[in-house]
Amino acid sequence: MSLIVQKYGGTSMGSVDRIKNVARRVAKWHAAGHQVIVVPSAMSGETNRLLTLANDITSDPDPREQDMLAATGEQASSALLAMALIAEGVPARSFTGWQVPVRTDSSYTKARIAEIDGDSIRAELDAGRVVVVTGYQGIDEHGYITTLGRGGSDTSAVAMAAALGADECLIFTDVDGVYTTDPRVVPQARRMRVTSFEEMLELASLGSKILQIRAVEFAGKFRVPLRVLSSLTDPLIPIEEETESGTLITFEEDSQMEAAVVSGIAFSRDETKFSLLGVPDTPGVAYSILGPVAAANIDVDMILQNQSVDGTTDFSFTVLHDDYERTHEILKTQVGPAVGAKQVIADSKVCKVSIVGIGMRSHVGVASLMFRTLAKEGINIQMISTSEIKTSVVIEDKYMELAVRALHKAFELDQDKYIPDDA
Amino acid sequence: MSLIVQKYGGTSMGSVDRIKNVARRVAKWHAAGHQVIVVPSAMSGETNRLLTLANDITSDPDPREQDMLAATGEQASSALLAMALIAEGVPARSFTGWQVPVRTDSSYTKARIAEIDGDSIRAELDAGRVVVVTGYQGIDEHGYITTLGRGGSDTSAVAMAAALGADECLIFTDVDGVYTTDPRVVPQARRMRVTSFEEMLELASLGSKILQIRAVEFAGKFRVPLRVLSSLTDPLIPIEEETESGTLITFEEDSQMEAAVVSGIAFSRDETKFSLLGVPDTPGVAYSILGPVAAANIDVDMILQNQSVDGTTDFSFTVLHDDYERTHEILKTQVGPAVGAKQVIADSKVCKVSIVGIGMRSHVGVASLMFRTLAKEGINIQMISTSEIKTSVVIEDKYMELAVRALHKAFELDQDKYIPDDA
Repeated sequence: MSLIVQKYGGTSMGSVDRIKNVARRVAKWHAAGHQVIVVPSAMSGETNRLLTLANDITSDPDPREQDMLAATGEQASSALLAMALIAEGVPARSFTGWQVPVRTDSSYTKARIAEIDGDSIRAELDAGRVVVVTGYQGIDEHGYITTLGRGGSDTSAVAMAAALGADECLIFTDVDGVYTTDPRVVPQARRMRVTSFEEMLELASLGSKILQIRAVEFAGKFRVPLRVLSSLTDPLIPIEEETESGTLITFEEDSQMEAAVVSGIAFSRDETKFSLLGVPDTPGVAYSILGPVAAANIDVDMILQNQSVDGTTDFSFTVLHDDYERTHEILKTQVGPAVGAKQVIADSKVCKVSIVGIGMRSHVGVASLMFRTLAKEGINIQMISTSEIKTSVVIEDKYMELAVRALHKAFELDQDKYIPDDA
Repeated sequence: MSLIVQKYGGTSMGSVDRIKNVARRVAKWHAAGHQVIVVPSAMSGETNRLLTLANDITSDPDPREQDMLAATGEQASSALLAMALIAEGVPARSFTGWQVPVRTDSSYTKARIAEIDGDSIRAELDAGRVVVVTGYQGIDEHGYITTLGRGGSDTSAVAMAAALGADECLIFTDVDGVYTTDPRVVPQARRMRVTSFEEMLELASLGSKILQIRAVEFAGKFRVPLRVLSSLTDPLIPIEEETESGTLITFEEDSQMEAAVVSGIAFSRDETKFSLLGVPDTPGVAYSILGPVAAANIDVDMILQNQSVDGTTDFSFTVLHDDYERTHEILKTQVGPAVGAKQVIADSKVCKVSIVGIGMRSHVGVASLMFRTLAKEGINIQMISTSEIKTSVVIEDKYMELAVRALHKAFELDQDKYIPDDA
């Protein structure tokens, strides 16, 4: 008998029929003797519906009240799922975040989980019940409802698994696992059977929408094995077959993973590049530029400072599109004049493409194959950044699909893992 | 400075624009220096939407889970209203039933309020905030969410007013008060400016849909003055004018009310009449007939036992349409044979018309004017029941409108209060 946490996303809970299917799937695990905690998202579209109402009321909804509002989506879907389970003959009860309780800080709309008291859930499990716990929400020290931000149900599920020492946390979603890259761009993309937390973190932060990054961090921190798998299979598929499917995200670096130098290619069009041209190159110029941006709470991703020529330099960095307006304002009115830049340029026609692989730690020549591949396709690299297990480039956005396909082929991700010459 | 509880029904909360109007109205009261607690219903249609989802999941939803589901409607509308208030510049916070807390028993879907701890609400009011409290719901001893049944937000508002010693409880709805009868049937129906709790109880229980009967009972028990008024007026109408509108339901029997012998006419098509013909008239026959019906938890309203002729009698009673099937089954298979009835007849083509007035206590001749009026219209009375402040008759349902209009005229409700000759 195992203790399993199962998280179902909004699409999996998107209709009465799908909720019934989730109930059948959970009933199968319960019948096999497992203890099951289910963490459902709101029915797809519901959170948007609620937040649209809020934004129709006021352009700047009070965050405490927004959480009070948004938390209802998961409360409703959890109650519906518990009903469906009971109707299937499975003893079940739903609990909200405050009933568990899931204690968080008071950062409304993006709260962080501080502590989960698992005693009441444990008692329900020991009484033979399936426990449905609302994702996405908790309660703060004032007794007010908080939410964890978009995708927060993943974090709820992982936190619940960590608090109760679950054997595995299954993330059911509308894809059947984590792919080497987006199959809509590269039809040859393959599902990874196993990947590491570190790779998953890089893939998640680079725009793969499968798992909320905080959920992966949480899982890594508390060593909770995560499995991403599809909720669109036959709910009565044998359990052995079900666990074989999907992608296991593990903290155990097994031999199979060692062989994979590059395991996936991520990409994103979410960034804008800003350049300050002809900046007098004085000591501390980077701080003079990025200090005010950071002070405005804007995350800077990639940074490039050119070699100084004739005492001036060009300085470029990228931020998320969402921060475009604010960044532009700061550069034009404040930073540009202050550092004496000749020109401030914003370029939204860029994209970021990254290769990710835990094996890059111990292998050289990976980045150079990336650059060679892009050069062969005539793609100019505008910026580069590297970490232990990833290399990212900024290129013109019209080349994005071409670059991803070429790299996917060059690293032989459609066939087998790429093993470089020095392996 | 007064402490005012204001309850807004689903229609009043039915759209973003209407919620904004409610916020403007509440802001006006707050600006005038009053402490205000607002109890909103769910947005109109929302509770039905949720319960339809539940019934699509299973024909017999688990009651605990149904309450978990249904309570979200008021939580969402309360948060939206608090946002709208804050956007209007009014400090406000919304609280769920469990946050107050409103303690109830564990009769899910029809819980009764046991106790309200008003301390946290009082602290918010003293801090200058408007407090929005979800209607319709509470928390039981297990920490589970309960709901009070359809129309329960009226009860929530009155209970909140009682717990905090409010000066008045305003029930805002889509009509502008309690009328002498339904204006759709009698265009001359007049709004009552004042009525008593006892009259309101009779009118509510007889089918006027304006107030939940438990709310009126609660208000009477705790002597909370209630006022029913329209939320469809200009929200910025002067407060003096606003309190002049609507109907005040008071426990103070003032002189104006003394003069009103009959203050309203209620009617309903919700009942079915059952008759057992040719029943041998033995002692205890009434109990033999009604005992099994009561045992099945079916409420019997009016009862008629004819004079015995040749040792047999005819026995009739009415039940709500909802109980038709079950009652018919009990009479046919069990009671009819047991008491030796010659025939069991069900008649759904009946209606009940009642005249209600606190002055009936001290005045005679009221019932006889009722009977005379109906006779003059050629309407046959099938059953009669009387209480201290009402007289009800069962008649053929096709005469309902005719009877109501004739009685409204006979008791001069369209002009002034009827004062009988012996006054």
